[in-house]
Amino acid sequence: MSNRHMARAIELSIENVSSGRGGPFAAVVVKDGQIIAEGTNQVTSLNDPTAHAEIVAIREACRALKNFQLTGCEIYTTCEPCPMCIGAIYWARPACVYFAATAADAAQYGFDDSFIPEELSRPLGDRKIPMTQIMREEALVAFPLWEQKPDKVKY
Amino acid sequence: MSNRHMARAIELSIENVSSGRGGPFAAVVVKDGQIIAEGTNQVTSLNDPTAHAEIVAIREACRALKNFQLTGCEIYTTCEPCPMCIGAIYWARPACVYFAATAADAAQYGFDDSFIPEELSRPLGDRKIPMTQIMREEALVAFPLWEQKPDKVKY
Repeated sequence: MSNRHMARAIELSIENVSSGRGGPFAAVVVKDGQIIAEGTNQVTSLNDPTAHAEIVAIREACRALKNFQLTGCEIYTTCEPCPMCIGAIYWARPACVYFAATAADAAQYGFDDSFIPEELSRPLGDRKIPMTQIMREEALVAFPLWEQKPDKVKY
Repeated sequence: MSNRHMARAIELSIENVSSGRGGPFAAVVVKDGQIIAEGTNQVTSLNDPTAHAEIVAIREACRALKNFQLTGCEIYTTCEPCPMCIGAIYWARPACVYFAATAADAAQYGFDDSFIPEELSRPLGDRKIPMTQIMREEALVAFPLWEQKPDKVKY
């Protein structure tokens, strides 16, 4: 199946490598048949480890729509999203996602994210980045404050 | 165990609710004993579904360090990170993470992320946000281009 929105994303991924902006990844967000945002990987050029193509495109699309949800939108990404981007996609709630290359394809070129779910299956203290719990009781204060706030914007 | 950096993060999480900027979450990044970046949840005030406290703090810390890695840094977050933020933490590669409230605590107040790993265990087409693969062959072009680029910045 060929698709012009994915073709555009692939074009952007190639340009992103040629221009030296970042890795070989791009994504576009489509609403009502029109591209409303484009994103490419800019981790190294922006010094932002979260600047994966999907995150950049989601943030840009939300800015365009003035909304923190991508209701009814489609995301086209040149590669299967990493765990961070999958999380971002679920928070943005688009209607669906199309991807082209697989995570395994990307891993062959040094972009391997399979260690992240592996890490998460380990106990907190046994991970490569250890996670330690402290001060739970003190932190709980913020939650009832949120619950009782009459003008809160839920998300 | 009490810790002044976590105490600061908790203070920020409370301020974030009071000010109406966003949800009851905050994080700080510490290097050499000093806070180099602070972040709070700003999903609704910035119209950015990726603006969780950890992501905001990581982006700010990387900007301060002019680096896309948080080598040697510690992240203090008022709540156990969601799957998106866990991914971001692995890409930023800090030395360790301290968290206070648990994901289960947050879920009691309507912030439930347990559906994300559940979704990922389902086949691509059976998810609430369906993921469909198209145009794999066309997308693969960008990878050898990356591999052959002599001046690429690896990340």
